[in-house]
Amino acid sequence: MPIKQGDLVILYYEGKKYLLSVKPEIFHTHCGYINLSELEGKSFGDQILSSTGEPFVILKPTLYDYVMKLKRITQIIYPKDLGYILLKLGVGEGKTFLECGTGSGALTCALAYLVGEKGKVISYEREEKFIKIAKENLTKLGLDGRVIIKHKEVIDAFEEREVDGVFLDVRSPWLLLEAAFNALKGGHPIGILVPTTNQVVQTLTTLKSLPFVDIEIVEILLRSYKLNPERFRPEDQMVAHTGYLIFAKKVLSDLVK
Amino acid sequence: MPIKQGDLVILYYEGKKYLLSVKPEIFHTHCGYINLSELEGKSFGDQILSSTGEPFVILKPTLYDYVMKLKRITQIIYPKDLGYILLKLGVGEGKTFLECGTGSGALTCALAYLVGEKGKVISYEREEKFIKIAKENLTKLGLDGRVIIKHKEVIDAFEEREVDGVFLDVRSPWLLLEAAFNALKGGHPIGILVPTTNQVVQTLTTLKSLPFVDIEIVEILLRSYKLNPERFRPEDQMVAHTGYLIFAKKVLSDLVK
Amino acid sequence: MPIKQGDLVILYYEGKKYLLSVKPEIFHTHCGYINLSELEGKSFGDQILSSTGEPFVILKPTLYDYVMKLKRITQIIYPKDLGYILLKLGVGEGKTFLECGTGSGALTCALAYLVGEKGKVISYEREEKFIKIAKENLTKLGLDGRVIIKHKEVIDAFEEREVDGVFLDVRSPWLLLEAAFNALKGGHPIGILVPTTNQVVQTLTTLKSLPFVDIEIVEILLRSYKLNPERFRPEDQMVAHTGYLIFAKKVLSDLVK
Amino acid sequence: MPIKQGDLVILYYEGKKYLLSVKPEIFHTHCGYINLSELEGKSFGDQILSSTGEPFVILKPTLYDYVMKLKRITQIIYPKDLGYILLKLGVGEGKTFLECGTGSGALTCALAYLVGEKGKVISYEREEKFIKIAKENLTKLGLDGRVIIKHKEVIDAFEEREVDGVFLDVRSPWLLLEAAFNALKGGHPIGILVPTTNQVVQTLTTLKSLPFVDIEIVEILLRSYKLNPERFRPEDQMVAHTGYLIFAKKVLSDLVK
Repeated sequence: MPIKQGDLVILYYEGKKYLLSVKPEIFHTHCGYINLSELEGKSFGDQILSSTGEPFVILKPTLYDYVMKLKRITQIIYPKDLGYILLKLGVGEGKTFLECGTGSGALTCALAYLVGEKGKVISYEREEKFIKIAKENLTKLGLDGRVIIKHKEVIDAFEEREVDGVFLDVRSPWLLLEAAFNALKGGHPIGILVPTTNQVVQTLTTLKSLPFVDIEIVEILLRSYKLNPERFRPEDQMVAHTGYLIFAKKVLSDLVK
Repeated sequence: MPIKQGDLVILYYEGKKYLLSVKPEIFHTHCGYINLSELEGKSFGDQILSSTGEPFVILKPTLYDYVMKLKRITQIIYPKDLGYILLKLGVGEGKTFLECGTGSGALTCALAYLVGEKGKVISYEREEKFIKIAKENLTKLGLDGRVIIKHKEVIDAFEEREVDGVFLDVRSPWLLLEAAFNALKGGHPIGILVPTTNQVVQTLTTLKSLPFVDIEIVEILLRSYKLNPERFRPEDQMVAHTGYLIFAKKVLSDLVK
Repeated sequence: MPIKQGDLVILYYEGKKYLLSVKPEIFHTHCGYINLSELEGKSFGDQILSSTGEPFVILKPTLYDYVMKLKRITQIIYPKDLGYILLKLGVGEGKTFLECGTGSGALTCALAYLVGEKGKVISYEREEKFIKIAKENLTKLGLDGRVIIKHKEVIDAFEEREVDGVFLDVRSPWLLLEAAFNALKGGHPIGILVPTTNQVVQTLTTLKSLPFVDIEIVEILLRSYKLNPERFRPEDQMVAHTGYLIFAKKVLSDLVK
Repeated sequence: MPIKQGDLVILYYEGKKYLLSVKPEIFHTHCGYINLSELEGKSFGDQILSSTGEPFVILKPTLYDYVMKLKRITQIIYPKDLGYILLKLGVGEGKTFLECGTGSGALTCALAYLVGEKGKVISYEREEKFIKIAKENLTKLGLDGRVIIKHKEVIDAFEEREVDGVFLDVRSPWLLLEAAFNALKGGHPIGILVPTTNQVVQTLTTLKSLPFVDIEIVEILLRSYKLNPERFRPEDQMVAHTGYLIFAKKVLSDLVK
């Protein structure tokens, strides 16, 4: 199926990737420019030459690419964490997820992408400038129709009830655990990301005081390898830390004991 | 929405989880039994007492739970790897993925779950006993309608063309890279899992001889933490290795250069 | 140089290692016995047959072997941490180190081994049963002459002054930081091992309130690999956590600022 | 004991450390200069003001500091690996170690430091420019009397026999394993560092063809933590890889079996 106006593509050149929309616009690189309209009619996997004759490969963006290439003004949730979060939240067609805060919208986009056309994502964010970026990102991916961003600071309660999953990515998630509990369906999951152990300790303490079970705390490390098969070895540097992930599921009444 | 006959549930008790179907069957535990029919009409998040009075919480299984609780006779792909694979393969509604081999069907189930009702998974497996298990698993999750399992050993070619992604989880993936290339849409992703560095070296060598770009090799480590907020620390032991993950995308013609 | 009565040896058989003294004693294994007197006159690197004809290799124990094969009734400090600690404490000939608590004496032995004949180790321990084990270990290695174990609980002060380094391996090291400070030479190092992040937080808070600089906190992970060169890969399981290591150096007066 | 001419000191200022000799020389920093002669008569732990009034703390260098602050023109062996190597090689007073190649001399210095006055290190290096640097480093630490650096490429044999341990840090260590075997005392250890898995595979294959036992292959990861107790968390980045460490011990005759 040929590429058409409005499609999103990755242009790949010597290890660098650019997420772009096919439209009448000039894309300037360090080695010449490309008129993005010229991508129309080509196929994914084709190459296009820049004005200086350098070949750029046209790739189909995956969810990984979307997340990594979003516009961002906050720390985003990285794919190593994101994939795991999606599995633990039980993301799937037609579900409704609640998220707080939106940030640059990386998780928002991933959730919206995977709940499909019949699903819904509600996302709370108190910073207007973050909402602006997140909306840009959602619109670029054509996912804005599945997402409601609420510009407000949550104190006591979310407005939603019976959602399929909640994710908290805020500075003091322990303050929102009761609100999250009330918004969740019974037996359904909550996920939380915090960067510091102090935050884990406070969150865990509150989590254990509420009717949650199946608690799990993990951190995920990703190590990349160099691409020389004759000298196969890890990269020299890696990201050492993004955050601690906390998960639990809601019990409807106090645990019998 | 009350639980009904045929629903899948997780029964949770003191850190242990069981994936079960609601049907007229007795579930025996180390602390009494539960008549699974009695779950009908209850809600997720409710508790049910075993015959000896122990409270089991009824949880909604997430994709994570499905994968971890599948029947297995092979090494399965773990959630830490699986989440990342799904992002890199660009899994989503309505897509078609090709996989070889099926094994116990963990990735098969995850792909089938996330491609939704309009999506498709084709999975090759040469061992009949693995197919039997994988089919059981798919049927249990109600995903068998989205999957075609082909009982054959792939030598030169897959029968499919223009699939949205390929995943290879076989002993000698380098032998199947050309077949995978031919089955893939241009610009679309392939993923490969191998446990040893020798296999990485051979796969990488072949991969670089074919028109693939955007190659990435990673390993993912998951570290769990203990749940005592007053003595917050990692678990004593962890899984040190599952496998190396290799990803790339297909270029339609030879790279210009 | 032939092995003589009283020497320490490692007997190695199929991946298992035993630290033994050469003396008139029978060593019983799962595959026959060995009369340890028969090791006399043999060389390191020789083999000796058990009563059932199994070959045990006679190896020279290294400091690594000593530490791993000590008698232990507490968690010991593992070689991955120990090697780093020794470098950070600046261990070397003729120095004096102070340690609290002794535990099973793994660090005590390593320090005593490396300070040499003219060095000294003072080790505080409040539990008599630990002291008994530590003394056994030191005596076995012939290092007891270099170590003074003090059976007392430290509250306010160590009795020593001007030591070359201090190491704290106790439950509440923050309570002993001032005592450690007073015992240390100016500009010299302190090391601390704690298993939990809560302990790190408390220790770090106190450490920063005292005139210490060059503070470092690390954790060290060791991953073992399988020994099959045709299937080279990490072991399946690993130790995920032993403890957090904290280091600093003493400033003689308050920091000018 | 007051600092005197010729002593080595660490000057510490706001997280930066400088290894310096006390002599009539001006040390220029980004915030003024210090006349190093003025350190004479001061104590470790004292502070000295730069010409612009910034306080530098005078610290006692530890073996860790020496290694990290050596002049280097090659990749050095890092403390996380070095500490473990020293334990596995059984370093200690009065022993003799053989090393190939010298590189910038980090391991050479550490071995020389710990074998003490009666010990010996023999180090082979084929590159004259590395020898020059290593000698400078050894001289600075006052350890040159314990080390013999041999400027030659080893092909078939080392000139030494009956050494207490061998360490190989060369591109093709498998070519030197027989030479290393012949130089070693029976039952004594060899250590090897290689950065790539391909080198591990070749080394391991050769190692298993010779009479070596007690083989171990590991990698060591060090993760640093930030120093804010209210936001305790790992650093964002870490070194992902230095090398694989291989250890074994020599058997005098072929293994019976």
